[in-house]
Amino acid sequence: MVCIEGNIMDREDVRFWSRVSKKIIKEAQKAVSPLVGTEEGGDIVKIGADGTPTKLIDIAAENKVVEVLEDAGRPSTLVSEEIGEFKIGKEPSEVVFVVDPLDGTSNALKNIPAYAVSLGIADASKVAPDKLTVADIEMGFVKNLATGDLYQAVKGQGATVNGKKLVPSTQEDISKSSIGAYIYRAEMSKVDRLCKSVRRMRILGSVAIELCYVADGTYDAFIDVRGNLRIVDISAAKLIIEETGGTVTDENCNPLKGYLNVLERTSIVAGCNPKIHSKIIQILGGIS
Amino acid sequence: MVCIEGNIMDREDVRFWSRVSKKIIKEAQKAVSPLVGTEEGGDIVKIGADGTPTKLIDIAAENKVVEVLEDAGRPSTLVSEEIGEFKIGKEPSEVVFVVDPLDGTSNALKNIPAYAVSLGIADASKVAPDKLTVADIEMGFVKNLATGDLYQAVKGQGATVNGKKLVPSTQEDISKSSIGAYIYRAEMSKVDRLCKSVRRMRILGSVAIELCYVADGTYDAFIDVRGNLRIVDISAAKLIIEETGGTVTDENCNPLKGYLNVLERTSIVAGCNPKIHSKIIQILGGIS
Repeated sequence: MVCIEGNIMDREDVRFWSRVSKKIIKEAQKAVSPLVGTEEGGDIVKIGADGTPTKLIDIAAENKVVEVLEDAGRPSTLVSEEIGEFKIGKEPSEVVFVVDPLDGTSNALKNIPAYAVSLGIADASKVAPDKLTVADIEMGFVKNLATGDLYQAVKGQGATVNGKKLVPSTQEDISKSSIGAYIYRAEMSKVDRLCKSVRRMRILGSVAIELCYVADGTYDAFIDVRGNLRIVDISAAKLIIEETGGTVTDENCNPLKGYLNVLERTSIVAGCNPKIHSKIIQILGGIS
Repeated sequence: MVCIEGNIMDREDVRFWSRVSKKIIKEAQKAVSPLVGTEEGGDIVKIGADGTPTKLIDIAAENKVVEVLEDAGRPSTLVSEEIGEFKIGKEPSEVVFVVDPLDGTSNALKNIPAYAVSLGIADASKVAPDKLTVADIEMGFVKNLATGDLYQAVKGQGATVNGKKLVPSTQEDISKSSIGAYIYRAEMSKVDRLCKSVRRMRILGSVAIELCYVADGTYDAFIDVRGNLRIVDISAAKLIIEETGGTVTDENCNPLKGYLNVLERTSIVAGCNPKIHSKIIQILGGIS
């Protein structure tokens, strides 16, 4: 067995929670699908645990997450956008599921083909759920529901898309780079130089998918320096990038350490390799 | 018959060139499809008429445009990214076809689901092809090859997507707006205020599709103030937006008047209705 920093879940556990995750994805997709491109899907049904309005399409997806976890037969803690933190089965939880049941809600409602289910799983058998951080995520799944692509990673075991090993870009030259970058409503003084330096910039509206694009070579990097990203949006994809050899930090080059809850917010700079990551950090203003 | 400014093509001509356009789209799609998501599709095969490198996937699509126009049996002038201006059949040309055989090439190569064929047609029977401008486009077709959506418009006769009348957004409030905006490598002083004012911003990487998103209610507006957009990218979608009641101008609120060639460049501000358009012009710095 390879020695890896932090807890590593047992092989049987990985298999078990992997099956559960795939069931969640399948059921969430079935629930979302009839609401894609509809006005009805956008009806506000309540205010979510993170304080933002919950839409019908979001709650339809999240309800399926809860249902599948309740049927799993083993105790877990769900951390999800609308429901907040929710204990399933008897305490103590074996794992924490950090879920964005539908990342890219507004795309799904407008039928822009970039929306996803994102699931990150941390082992809660040795550390209490409220002490775990995004660095403890050991399994990650992102399914692009519009294209059907399934990205997954297990800590220390690499990452795949549709079962094939992910191959990131080897680009190290910013002037030739394609990056995803959420720069609107950001401080322009922070992002101005980067905006002038890159070859191509995209904002597709699904952070989970766009982080996976750093893992699969579609993007060379991804940044969001507004400091407003939720841990549920990034927990799975962060592991997926790291398992391909990419680097993920906050805008000051610090490791991400947000606790696994819906209130934690962060900035992110993800690079397909350490060199491009470090160049972006420099362009953004260096390490504070 | 409704009285419309400028030339209006004969009903039979509209039908004829509409059939030709649909054949072009079908053949271009067939040529592009096996190269989507491949490295081979990105091989540089020559330098295009607009001075940028031509990729295999671009030339594969454009060759089909030429083939179908040559088979059409009636004379035309093709204005297209790689070939420049190309006369087909005996002079004088009946129409000018302004074509982007593959808008969103880099998306197609990376399998990001936003790439399109765009065709705008102007009547050349009364005005010489080199005197026609983007304001003379009388028919427009944009096919989103990733989703299959076909947008089309005939001047004075409205616009449709997949045969259904296009319904744009009624949004007039910038703070609630979703806009497509090419702000990287732009003067930040121009776009800074807009970036802070909008609800959502997207950069999908296909101007033709994103302009059609202004026509179908997905976006409330689209801007590119870098002054570097080509007429071939926008000729069809501009008509499609105008036929839904939207407004398309340059960043100074002047009508677009670029001649139908591959060297003309412009800025663009497209709004789903005149009110949101005028607010964006104001935010960008007003009318110069």
